[in-house]
Amino acid sequence: MSEKQNDKNQVFQTGRTTLVRRPERGRYDFPAIAAILDEAYICNIGFVLEGQPYVLPTAFGRDGHIIYFHGHLENHMLNVIGSGIPICFTSMILDGFVLAKSAFRHSMNYRSVVVLGRPKLVHDAEKQHALRVITNHVIPGRWEDVRTPTQEELDKVVVVKLAIEEASAKVRTGPPVDLDEDHGRDVWSGVIPVSQNYHAAHPAPDCGATAPLPKYAVNYTRPTGR
Amino acid sequence: MSEKQNDKNQVFQTGRTTLVRRPERGRYDFPAIAAILDEAYICNIGFVLEGQPYVLPTAFGRDGHIIYFHGHLENHMLNVIGSGIPICFTSMILDGFVLAKSAFRHSMNYRSVVVLGRPKLVHDAEKQHALRVITNHVIPGRWEDVRTPTQEELDKVVVVKLAIEEASAKVRTGPPVDLDEDHGRDVWSGVIPVSQNYHAAHPAPDCGATAPLPKYAVNYTRPTGR
Repeated sequence: MSEKQNDKNQVFQTGRTTLVRRPERGRYDFPAIAAILDEAYICNIGFVLEGQPYVLPTAFGRDGHIIYFHGHLENHMLNVIGSGIPICFTSMILDGFVLAKSAFRHSMNYRSVVVLGRPKLVHDAEKQHALRVITNHVIPGRWEDVRTPTQEELDKVVVVKLAIEEASAKVRTGPPVDLDEDHGRDVWSGVIPVSQNYHAAHPAPDCGATAPLPKYAVNYTRPTGR
Repeated sequence: MSEKQNDKNQVFQTGRTTLVRRPERGRYDFPAIAAILDEAYICNIGFVLEGQPYVLPTAFGRDGHIIYFHGHLENHMLNVIGSGIPICFTSMILDGFVLAKSAFRHSMNYRSVVVLGRPKLVHDAEKQHALRVITNHVIPGRWEDVRTPTQEELDKVVVVKLAIEEASAKVRTGPPVDLDEDHGRDVWSGVIPVSQNYHAAHPAPDCGATAPLPKYAVNYTRPTGR
């Protein structure tokens, strides 16, 4: 399993998380992994049910070395995931389209994280804490502004945690890399940068005229690790 | 398996793709599924290797009822996926953050597609066709502008196809839905719309001054099914 160094610079590389293709794009240290996780907020959870793999896109939050995600009690898949089976957590931030002079050298710029592990269900006080972590991961400060869950609401949510113990990050940056013999071709090559665009917020019909527009809804931004 | 109607309005609903939680968000007809696939271009492929699920984020293209994706020959995972094992294809477009007056009612607006199936490796003439489909799915018209792959390059690419036979789409739109008793709370509620932002293209160092900037690099846009 993971070869542990000190807590700040823990290394999560194992045989299963080591990049074979393009090893130079791999990162295995906690700061590199955490920076990507803190800019992202959507993940894809891979798991197996009766021999069939499924992939569930969902929001997540990070608290130190723990990733939390959640779903409704009626979402059977969350209970399956929380039962201790092996899962694959993946999250990717797309940074651009890489247009080369040859079709073969086209690529994308991106930063991604993979975490392998066996998640656990979260209960009691940690459940409320986890929901705060997820809410504030997506919209920092939101939890403090809204009505917190009642016990009845908490009972309807399944919360799952995954420890970051076996993981990798993968990053591609920069321009296309064409073959020498293609450099002279008279076709445009370069990068079209891609990012998320957060637009002006629309109030809900029942928002009410007196509710002040919070800072995160005026000009929503993410921390960036780039 | 899938209950087939006519080709244009085929239905892909099975027990495994039927939404249990929030069934009103489910769509099972081909036009609904195709519209989401045509706006998206990143998917997450779930598969199992030695009992461990993995999720691979990658680009894809659609040609009728076929989804194509690809990778380098050295990417062992593509060969595993193409060996006929069951996979889960998932693609999601995020449309907004849904901020309710209670933590429990927070959500996201999104459109997602799940396709279950056993993909096949693509060979010979179909391989070049599939690469054209993928390239032009991400950047329409790009294939026609660049040098097409040599046989040596084609031999280095693994191309996989997945038939859309068992699938579902899931869509959430609109404002937050708060409990009646929360409507009077003096906290802002509403939607922060999210979309992809395509920025001004940067030419590569070897682009050359005479290569004309193509239309897709001046003002890149996607077809939208919204």
